[in-house]
Amino acid sequence: MIDYNPKVWFTFIFRIHKADTVRKLAPMFLALSVYSALIAFLELELLELSPNSDLKQITVVHSLLGFVISMLLVFRTNTAYDRWWEGRKQWGSLVNNSRNLAIKLNAILPASNTASREFFRIMIPNYAFGLKNHLRAVYNTEELEGDPKIQPDKHVPNQISSLILAHIHELYRQQQISGEQLLSLNPELQSFTDICGACERIRNTPIPFSYSVFIKKFIFFFVMTLPIGYVFSLHYLIIPVVVFIFYVLASLELIAEEIEDPFGFDANDLPTDTISANIRKHVAEIL
Amino acid sequence: MIDYNPKVWFTFIFRIHKADTVRKLAPMFLALSVYSALIAFLELELLELSPNSDLKQITVVHSLLGFVISMLLVFRTNTAYDRWWEGRKQWGSLVNNSRNLAIKLNAILPASNTASREFFRIMIPNYAFGLKNHLRAVYNTEELEGDPKIQPDKHVPNQISSLILAHIHELYRQQQISGEQLLSLNPELQSFTDICGACERIRNTPIPFSYSVFIKKFIFFFVMTLPIGYVFSLHYLIIPVVVFIFYVLASLELIAEEIEDPFGFDANDLPTDTISANIRKHVAEIL
Amino acid sequence: MIDYNPKVWFTFIFRIHKADTVRKLAPMFLALSVYSALIAFLELELLELSPNSDLKQITVVHSLLGFVISMLLVFRTNTAYDRWWEGRKQWGSLVNNSRNLAIKLNAILPASNTASREFFRIMIPNYAFGLKNHLRAVYNTEELEGDPKIQPDKHVPNQISSLILAHIHELYRQQQISGEQLLSLNPELQSFTDICGACERIRNTPIPFSYSVFIKKFIFFFVMTLPIGYVFSLHYLIIPVVVFIFYVLASLELIAEEIEDPFGFDANDLPTDTISANIRKHVAEIL
Amino acid sequence: MIDYNPKVWFTFIFRIHKADTVRKLAPMFLALSVYSALIAFLELELLELSPNSDLKQITVVHSLLGFVISMLLVFRTNTAYDRWWEGRKQWGSLVNNSRNLAIKLNAILPASNTASREFFRIMIPNYAFGLKNHLRAVYNTEELEGDPKIQPDKHVPNQISSLILAHIHELYRQQQISGEQLLSLNPELQSFTDICGACERIRNTPIPFSYSVFIKKFIFFFVMTLPIGYVFSLHYLIIPVVVFIFYVLASLELIAEEIEDPFGFDANDLPTDTISANIRKHVAEIL
Amino acid sequence: MIDYNPKVWFTFIFRIHKADTVRKLAPMFLALSVYSALIAFLELELLELSPNSDLKQITVVHSLLGFVISMLLVFRTNTAYDRWWEGRKQWGSLVNNSRNLAIKLNAILPASNTASREFFRIMIPNYAFGLKNHLRAVYNTEELEGDPKIQPDKHVPNQISSLILAHIHELYRQQQISGEQLLSLNPELQSFTDICGACERIRNTPIPFSYSVFIKKFIFFFVMTLPIGYVFSLHYLIIPVVVFIFYVLASLELIAEEIEDPFGFDANDLPTDTISANIRKHVAEIL
Repeated sequence: MIDYNPKVWFTFIFRIHKADTVRKLAPMFLALSVYSALIAFLELELLELSPNSDLKQITVVHSLLGFVISMLLVFRTNTAYDRWWEGRKQWGSLVNNSRNLAIKLNAILPASNTASREFFRIMIPNYAFGLKNHLRAVYNTEELEGDPKIQPDKHVPNQISSLILAHIHELYRQQQISGEQLLSLNPELQSFTDICGACERIRNTPIPFSYSVFIKKFIFFFVMTLPIGYVFSLHYLIIPVVVFIFYVLASLELIAEEIEDPFGFDANDLPTDTISANIRKHVAEIL
Repeated sequence: MIDYNPKVWFTFIFRIHKADTVRKLAPMFLALSVYSALIAFLELELLELSPNSDLKQITVVHSLLGFVISMLLVFRTNTAYDRWWEGRKQWGSLVNNSRNLAIKLNAILPASNTASREFFRIMIPNYAFGLKNHLRAVYNTEELEGDPKIQPDKHVPNQISSLILAHIHELYRQQQISGEQLLSLNPELQSFTDICGACERIRNTPIPFSYSVFIKKFIFFFVMTLPIGYVFSLHYLIIPVVVFIFYVLASLELIAEEIEDPFGFDANDLPTDTISANIRKHVAEIL
Repeated sequence: MIDYNPKVWFTFIFRIHKADTVRKLAPMFLALSVYSALIAFLELELLELSPNSDLKQITVVHSLLGFVISMLLVFRTNTAYDRWWEGRKQWGSLVNNSRNLAIKLNAILPASNTASREFFRIMIPNYAFGLKNHLRAVYNTEELEGDPKIQPDKHVPNQISSLILAHIHELYRQQQISGEQLLSLNPELQSFTDICGACERIRNTPIPFSYSVFIKKFIFFFVMTLPIGYVFSLHYLIIPVVVFIFYVLASLELIAEEIEDPFGFDANDLPTDTISANIRKHVAEIL
Repeated sequence: MIDYNPKVWFTFIFRIHKADTVRKLAPMFLALSVYSALIAFLELELLELSPNSDLKQITVVHSLLGFVISMLLVFRTNTAYDRWWEGRKQWGSLVNNSRNLAIKLNAILPASNTASREFFRIMIPNYAFGLKNHLRAVYNTEELEGDPKIQPDKHVPNQISSLILAHIHELYRQQQISGEQLLSLNPELQSFTDICGACERIRNTPIPFSYSVFIKKFIFFFVMTLPIGYVFSLHYLIIPVVVFIFYVLASLELIAEEIEDPFGFDANDLPTDTISANIRKHVAEIL
Repeated sequence: MIDYNPKVWFTFIFRIHKADTVRKLAPMFLALSVYSALIAFLELELLELSPNSDLKQITVVHSLLGFVISMLLVFRTNTAYDRWWEGRKQWGSLVNNSRNLAIKLNAILPASNTASREFFRIMIPNYAFGLKNHLRAVYNTEELEGDPKIQPDKHVPNQISSLILAHIHELYRQQQISGEQLLSLNPELQSFTDICGACERIRNTPIPFSYSVFIKKFIFFFVMTLPIGYVFSLHYLIIPVVVFIFYVLASLELIAEEIEDPFGFDANDLPTDTISANIRKHVAEIL
């Protein structure tokens, strides 16, 4: 995720950032310029169509459907943003549950049981690192601390979660944790797997295929038919107009595509590296 | 569900996919073309209506109501998508609860009790398979493992859930599971039936009949009256214009119809087969 | 609720269903036709107003406010639909909790205690039937099974819920249900009253009076002023135009009115009879 | 809250109800009429501006921003309605928890302990009455039953909640309530304070000041500049047009202001008196 | 947060408040006026472009995209408001949990244990003050009461939460709190860290960078191209028109920027000082 100060307008407007859609769409801008120029040349100079040609009226499509395309893009924006924000909430929840588990274990475990304290101080943050890499399909265990006997080719977060639960129930059998204390730890213990599952769901389920296809087709035909009618009133000015309208519509689709899977390495993705490191730092402060 | 890379625009725009609404609507495109051509022929050549005919002004309906129809289609899209996404969340929740139950049982059950471990290793994934088929009205038990004495003519998920709970409470009576451990298993145990009920609700409750009728009637009259007025300015160009506007409006309704019941075999439906298989794989890794 | 196949467009479009708003609005269509014809006759033939009359410009109101009225109707549609859907969720939750309670009791109660099994097999579905009638203000106990000493003039669901809880705590005092088992039953036991309260809230709280008044007034003035301006361009064609626009706007309000209280006998209401019968069937299969 | 039958359109449309925004806005209608007439007189007769004056083109502002103002009013309407509906849900939740607490205590308390039954029969409904008055800043204890030693100058709901919890834990210490029964009562016991806090939050937090200012400024300038441009086409017809557009925009803001604090005595406010009385009635039926 | 009476329209409309966007945008208004005047001078007087110049038609961009920009600003407004409101809910939840914890501890702790009562009377409100300063990046412990050995350079809320939990579990080990009472305190105890994490999430996660950039770029180009086309019909009237449209669009972005981090010292921020003080007052009344 890019850290930024939302109040500095000028750098926003004039700098073209790495993640800026202007950069990605530049080749399309060129192609569309050529296409629009061709249409203009064809209609105005080659065919010398009169300004009252029926083709001019084709703009009725754009005014009738302009609203539908806007609504669709907003639908697209909302659903993509919701996934991004839900992903952020899940990682926020991981922070909360890691801290709460550490705070509770600190209060429950006898000060003398340094082995268990050490175990949890290592394993709770390990879950965050394991999940982070799991969501990026990075299958190694290098960032995990301790010597946790985790097999990188199996589901890593499940293994860590399983080790934590087995240790807790072992302490319960040894009566270092009472039955009521076990129950009070339960919400945090089961939250890890819930968070992992929710993140997997977000990563694996883009917007339904039909919508994705339909929106792209719609933008394409909407923009490609624009010069046909407007060329009569705008002449060669049609070129920047078509490019700008395409820029707006395609940008919304592009940004939505980028943020709907928020766990990768894209510029707008969530700072899961930082969050994992913070969990490690704060758990170490507590336990 | 169709696996796709949302960033490859060109194949999206030019390939006509099996689930594409273009394919389904093709006969209607033809009918509408004929209808529009007839209207044009009638008004322009048979009746030779003047371009100032009152009929031309009928387009006021389309500009006043164009907004309402867009809003309705967005409402339709949102409610259908919400069901699809809620269905996906329920299946994500099934994944989480299956894993959590396996992780907890692994921590609780003595390593020696292989019979119970075996039982849960088989029955937890069986629930997912049973639910998947139940939602598709497929009444057989072929995909269920073990020999679970499930009667395919009764409610299959309820029977599996009942077997799991009976086994848990049996272990509790034998004191292999303590009271507090029983309580810590409770959220997962009751989640199965909650998930099943939520999926049944989504499958059995389409959008209220009145809205479904109203939207279809509205699209129909909106499109059928389009050529009457616009034929004066567009002449025979009215044919592609009407077809394109119908394509956009009807596609949104068609996609909504397809995704609002996300548990079947449609191209956009949820990959419940894959999810069930993953549950079986991951539970086997844990227990 | 009407069972229907959302994919059969033709019957949708041409059949006028019992619940169709066309049927309910027919008298208004007639009145509006007469009114529009009168306005047209008055302005065009009696007063012989010139096409440049200021009255023609009154249409500016309709284009400036056309958007506001659409937004309001969508707001109306969304809030009404949300109630309908929340009502459906509550009844889905009732299904889940009835099943879960039966499954848990089946696992907890000794097979020998047939009296208690019988009691719960009767009383759990009774709650659904009692709630269904309570929400319809039907005060009899005919559909309740057993001989439950329910007084129809008091709050029926509360009485059934009270009987169930008293029985559970009696079994707890007799130590047929352990403390932890009692706790594991708690979510289901308290859910009944929560569901009842939520349904009562939906039934008793329509959209705030001010909105209901404002939307109706707005539709009325919007439609009544339509012919005044548009009559100059549409002449007698104004009649079907006004009727169609009124049909669209009023239908949305009418459908919203119907579905915002989803527990009655209207065509779009929830199938609470069927759901109650299903609960009875499934609980009997389990217990 | 006003009880009404949403299906009687005619009385809605023609009766001007006490809470009707028409009544509140009447003085503004007059002022705006005078203002519009003045503008018309000035531009048309005093300055004799030609119909091609640049001023006529100022209407471009209204068509470009007409959409923004509608969106803002819908945003305003949605947030105000959400508070009203959340307030209603909180009071519905109070009903549910009061009933559930009574039903559970009825099942738990021995029939012989009439003192405690009497205590809860009085104190549970007292909470609703105390909260109702607290939210209206009515600081007396007249509606509270029994002799509860409540100090009206301190936080009344907190005191009642504290008395209830102290009594419950006293019964627990006397072993009339077992540990598991105490736990099963916990959700209801803590819900009271949660509901109180949620209602206080709704009452104390109107929409952010900046939005409130901005929307009012926007409506004002939008309406005040309307006659400047439209007077050329509408002449003195501008007067009813401006008044009607103002009526629509200002009504939405006025209704939103009224319902966003739903706990007072306004016509649209929630029927907290009736709900409190119903809680008293139903708790007395149960306990 | 600014305390205000939403019903006093006149002061709203004419007073320019400190937080008013008019004040912040004033320099931009000036710059835009000069820019628009320059464009007008250039096109109308220097180049003497004919009113039929192609440049006039560039307004087609503004009518086609006017809707998209409105939708985007509403999306921006909704997401910013949602954060503000979620922040408010979290602090409301902090109030509820502080009160509930105090009420429960008052019922549980023996009257004789004044030391523990004193401890919680001080520490529960300390959490609110610590969180308030933590969210403002104010690292001192001056507002904390007692002598709590809190290190201001570590995570302050975590330390306070840890002290509270350690004390509770100490009382549990001394059997002043029973196992069931410990469990009944669990929801409040873990809520503190959940609230802290949620507030940190809101503060640290503005809207994705791409949207922030895109909206600002879009507003900029939309406004800068406005005079090019409209100057032909509006002449020098273009100046106030451009300024007013910019005022509306930029205000929405500015307000959204201000409220999306609601924990600071901005005029619209949440009154966390007051809430913290209220928690201290109410907890002291209870315990």
